[in-house]
Amino acid sequence: MDIDALRSAHPEHWSKAAAIRALTLDAVAAANSGHSGMPMGMADVATVLFEKHLKFDAAQPSWPDRDRFILSAGHGSMLLYSLLHLTGYEQFPIEELRNFRQWGARTAGHPENFLAEAIETTTGPLGQGLANSVGFAMAEEMLRAQFSKKVVDHHTYVIAGDGCLMEGVSQEAIALAGRHELSKLIVFWDNNNITIDGKVELSDRTDQPMRFKSAGWHVQEIDGHDPEAIDAAITAAKQSNKPSMIACKTHIALGHAAQDTSKGHGALTNADQMAAAKAAYGWTTGPFEVPADIKAAWETIGRRGASEYTEWQERFAGLSERRQGEFNRRLSGEVPNKLAAVVRALKKQLSESQPNVATRKASEMALEVINPVLEETVGGSADLTGSNNTLTPDLGVFDIDNRKGRFVHWGIREHGMASAMNGMALHGGIKPYSGTFMCFTDYARPAMRLSALMRTSTIYVMTHDSIGLGEDGPTHQPVEHLAMLRATPNMLVFRPADVIETAEAWELALSQTGTPSTLSLTRQNVPTLRTEHKNKNLTAQGAYVMAEATGKRQAILMATGSEVAIAMDARALLEAEGIGTRVVSMPCWELFEAQDEAIRKRVLPAGPVRVAVEAGVRMGWDKWLMGERGREAKADFVGMDGFGASAPAETLYEKFGITAEAIAAKVKALL
Amino acid sequence: MDIDALRSAHPEHWSKAAAIRALTLDAVAAANSGHSGMPMGMADVATVLFEKHLKFDAAQPSWPDRDRFILSAGHGSMLLYSLLHLTGYEQFPIEELRNFRQWGARTAGHPENFLAEAIETTTGPLGQGLANSVGFAMAEEMLRAQFSKKVVDHHTYVIAGDGCLMEGVSQEAIALAGRHELSKLIVFWDNNNITIDGKVELSDRTDQPMRFKSAGWHVQEIDGHDPEAIDAAITAAKQSNKPSMIACKTHIALGHAAQDTSKGHGALTNADQMAAAKAAYGWTTGPFEVPADIKAAWETIGRRGASEYTEWQERFAGLSERRQGEFNRRLSGEVPNKLAAVVRALKKQLSESQPNVATRKASEMALEVINPVLEETVGGSADLTGSNNTLTPDLGVFDIDNRKGRFVHWGIREHGMASAMNGMALHGGIKPYSGTFMCFTDYARPAMRLSALMRTSTIYVMTHDSIGLGEDGPTHQPVEHLAMLRATPNMLVFRPADVIETAEAWELALSQTGTPSTLSLTRQNVPTLRTEHKNKNLTAQGAYVMAEATGKRQAILMATGSEVAIAMDARALLEAEGIGTRVVSMPCWELFEAQDEAIRKRVLPAGPVRVAVEAGVRMGWDKWLMGERGREAKADFVGMDGFGASAPAETLYEKFGITAEAIAAKVKALL
Repeated sequence: MDIDALRSAHPEHWSKAAAIRALTLDAVAAANSGHSGMPMGMADVATVLFEKHLKFDAAQPSWPDRDRFILSAGHGSMLLYSLLHLTGYEQFPIEELRNFRQWGARTAGHPENFLAEAIETTTGPLGQGLANSVGFAMAEEMLRAQFSKKVVDHHTYVIAGDGCLMEGVSQEAIALAGRHELSKLIVFWDNNNITIDGKVELSDRTDQPMRFKSAGWHVQEIDGHDPEAIDAAITAAKQSNKPSMIACKTHIALGHAAQDTSKGHGALTNADQMAAAKAAYGWTTGPFEVPADIKAAWETIGRRGASEYTEWQERFAGLSERRQGEFNRRLSGEVPNKLAAVVRALKKQLSESQPNVATRKASEMALEVINPVLEETVGGSADLTGSNNTLTPDLGVFDIDNRKGRFVHWGIREHGMASAMNGMALHGGIKPYSGTFMCFTDYARPAMRLSALMRTSTIYVMTHDSIGLGEDGPTHQPVEHLAMLRATPNMLVFRPADVIETAEAWELALSQTGTPSTLSLTRQNVPTLRTEHKNKNLTAQGAYVMAEATGKRQAILMATGSEVAIAMDARALLEAEGIGTRVVSMPCWELFEAQDEAIRKRVLPAGPVRVAVEAGVRMGWDKWLMGERGREAKADFVGMDGFGASAPAETLYEKFGITAEAIAAKVKALL
Repeated sequence: MDIDALRSAHPEHWSKAAAIRALTLDAVAAANSGHSGMPMGMADVATVLFEKHLKFDAAQPSWPDRDRFILSAGHGSMLLYSLLHLTGYEQFPIEELRNFRQWGARTAGHPENFLAEAIETTTGPLGQGLANSVGFAMAEEMLRAQFSKKVVDHHTYVIAGDGCLMEGVSQEAIALAGRHELSKLIVFWDNNNITIDGKVELSDRTDQPMRFKSAGWHVQEIDGHDPEAIDAAITAAKQSNKPSMIACKTHIALGHAAQDTSKGHGALTNADQMAAAKAAYGWTTGPFEVPADIKAAWETIGRRGASEYTEWQERFAGLSERRQGEFNRRLSGEVPNKLAAVVRALKKQLSESQPNVATRKASEMALEVINPVLEETVGGSADLTGSNNTLTPDLGVFDIDNRKGRFVHWGIREHGMASAMNGMALHGGIKPYSGTFMCFTDYARPAMRLSALMRTSTIYVMTHDSIGLGEDGPTHQPVEHLAMLRATPNMLVFRPADVIETAEAWELALSQTGTPSTLSLTRQNVPTLRTEHKNKNLTAQGAYVMAEATGKRQAILMATGSEVAIAMDARALLEAEGIGTRVVSMPCWELFEAQDEAIRKRVLPAGPVRVAVEAGVRMGWDKWLMGERGREAKADFVGMDGFGASAPAETLYEKFGITAEAIAAKVKALL
């Protein structure tokens, strides 16, 4: 690569891009860790994007109508941090770059959205940013349709690497974006032909432009170091009525001895080589020093959007006060008071009608009253709409000619669905919920973990949550999935027992502003157990007494979901034999753990024998069987200790011994 | 669709295909559950494949050189069961079809490989079969190169639906097959334009032929009901030097009132409509009755390969006795005695040299002695070869011009890698192991669960297994993953403490024949703790006493992996204060659970206080803290209660309080 030719062809551009390259080298060297090559390769694309196209104002990182910039190749985090520092974001003084990858810094190894306002999403697990961007772009389309182009009209720009494009989730994202003609989504592919193991062709020879075209994208191929070509390509991409992919031929670690090699992917810390690279760039200042003129040029870019922001504010002020309030409320993530009201009314009605329905059906009943009063909900399903029961009549289907539609047919793409939901939640103004079979949380898992880490309030509607699914067999029957989800930090896992708890769970899930929720719902019918109406949301306590012992309390049965009714039947058997038995429903462990010890002890007092019942594996239950101070002597578990089988649900419950009789027998054995 | 025209154009073909359609309708109706439409749509393709191309002998379901037939669209299981019954597989009498989806039947809702020899893989979670097939085809290439074309020379045929192609894992599989020119892989795409939610275009408009071409595939598009076109396409596919995709335009639920609708995807049980469909087929016999001539024609097809099998036996007999023995041993999955010998020798050497190395490095040291004596191992990495340490010098890299290579550069495709490993293991003759960062078990998760369900002995080498990964931050730091894996039935999770336990874990993992293993390995160095050589594999017990208390035993510290050394340091602190402390290393919970109660009680006697230490979440540990009969009064846990952070590893251990001092303090608080 002839660096001199690049420098002399576009000297002003060059010096700005060189600032990114020099800061990257300095920060990675200071940390002695990180990834130098990608920011050095993509500095030109990023510089042109920020200088000429990206709508942003460094003084207004939360401007709702800013363009979103998503670094899907998150290991190149110094590209983002350099840009945020150079353009003058207050949260990114030079000290943050000096502390790259250190405890307490905003400049984590990979971008983490919760550390700074200007970081749109958390990336690093490859492909996630690209898949998030589909949700960002869908959210923009929806909000534009709902609130008008005057206040919502922005692009979503993504930098994706070869790794992003190899991950399967990229295909799900690309296909969705193509299907929905998300024309304001523009993806730069950092086509540097290098992965950690070596040349890309070691593992891949995909014709990526052809692949994107097959999904309905507008595709361009350019020299990623030519600022004029970059500018022209972005201009063309913005004009296209399709999502756009710009294949940028770049040199990883441009100008460094490790250029175009897999070594260039990682941390370049050799002092002599750094000096040589900086010399080639014409960079003469010391570490972390940016010449004043270059910094000033970048800061001018940082405020380039200031007048646009002012104009936007004026247009926003032109909305009615009610619409302004609604817009702001929706972006805050706060739910309206109406939510509690409609849930209470529904509970009252259901506690009287006492339907015998599956909790997935109960979920639909809740959504039918919630969706009309929460315009921010967007539902969906991974091609199981009629099974997940996530589509209510008022939503309308999101499509090219119906951007107001609030239901997304995601196709058979659980991972892309979950990632896009995260994108919607991160964009703001939308509360996404979508469903699949509980067993296929496996497919959505990488994005579900990121929901928890990123503190989005994404809602997963996971139906067919046990062997109760029946004939489809063990590939479709979750047994370990509740444990897996409960083990994940910052995730509320709701497994409601009946129609009332389901409505309560929905109210709680929708009220979260920094925690995702999973609703674990049955395929099979369950009776209404909460037949006495209470305004109070009992599920909010996480666990509570569903039925008290008659006379002396000798046993406590703990259960969740469809097994609460079975525990109630077991209680009847035991009480008939004079064994006083309390039944505790535990719809949400995490909320119960958050209660004061006094409340937990009131629900689960020491003394009686304890039997837990859940049609899943035991892992996790020992905590409740052991009791608050590890003093429970006598406890047992009724559930699964292996995979399920293909047969009718009733047969499976019988064969796997999850029955009232088996529970009663365990209690008696312990007494 | 003009059924009469189809019937009259190819009457003999038609009646055989009609048998599949009629049996499908009957079985689904009897079960009142299942998926009728796909077998009815793909019956023509399957009939031509089995009649004219598939190399098989129904009397020899385990013939090693049979062609593999993989139903990736597993919900269409009645297609497979019908074919197995019609062609005369002994395990599939008509009673099995009558018991479709019932307890104890081989005809589970979705095909399950462990229920019958002739079921090659377990499908249902979409895309998995297609991704397995890459491993099947790679295994065939490898074994052909190793044992010669005389005894290994077969095709892998796959039926994939729209759902398979929407799942992201399909892209990983397609790209891998294209990259490696797996020309003996032939995929039929059931292009019926229907998913559960409606027309495919609701969620997808991908040009699939173009997409496959972009990945380097040979692509044909045919009428999937025209037997001559099907035959010609398969012939052309076999001649291609690339993997081949045949897009078969079909009508789901052909000839039924629900044809070409999403209703046709599910269970078609209406008696009148069934009768009408059968009448259209010219099918006049009762339920589950196949006219004798048609059954005879199918049984002739079933033995079509008998002479080929005999010829194969003769060629196999032409191998030297040693090679025959080796071939048979490898297909059996049994390891040679040499394995134990080389592991013992390595342990002896390491217990003397006592290196201070990461367990990922220890894993490499083990592989360096194992790979030369186990020619069936095939290693790999999802683009982290130098980090996972899975490539040893003797393996060679699998490539188009080196089919003897035993290392696969999978690219950034954890899911495709895991699925392909399952395919290799199911094919037989190969013991696959491959690595990525432990955190990205999330991406591989759907296939890892299937390893456990399918009873393959796939080995996952998951390195960088805690916050010890350091600066890359929480997106790369597993905290809940050990719990997730341990919650999964039939999965051995090894977290070795040092170089010796790592070697022992490898011996155990490789010796499994029906259970997958995950090796959880550190990035950071750990000291050799097992400094006294023992021939016996102590890890085989799952947990054992690493260091005994001096004097009265007041405390037991339980730990795994890198935390065992920290527990040893805590023990030193406690012993210095006169508190007798035992340290128990627990490298494999599952193996410990399988021990007699007496052994478990010897390792973890009641009495002393217990503190568990692991740089992950607590979930699961309460089981060991509670003790055998729930009698442990005093116990505590040192580990993570949330996500990690980006900083150097030592800082993180300090900040998150996983230190010898913290452990000692907890013990003293309990005493």
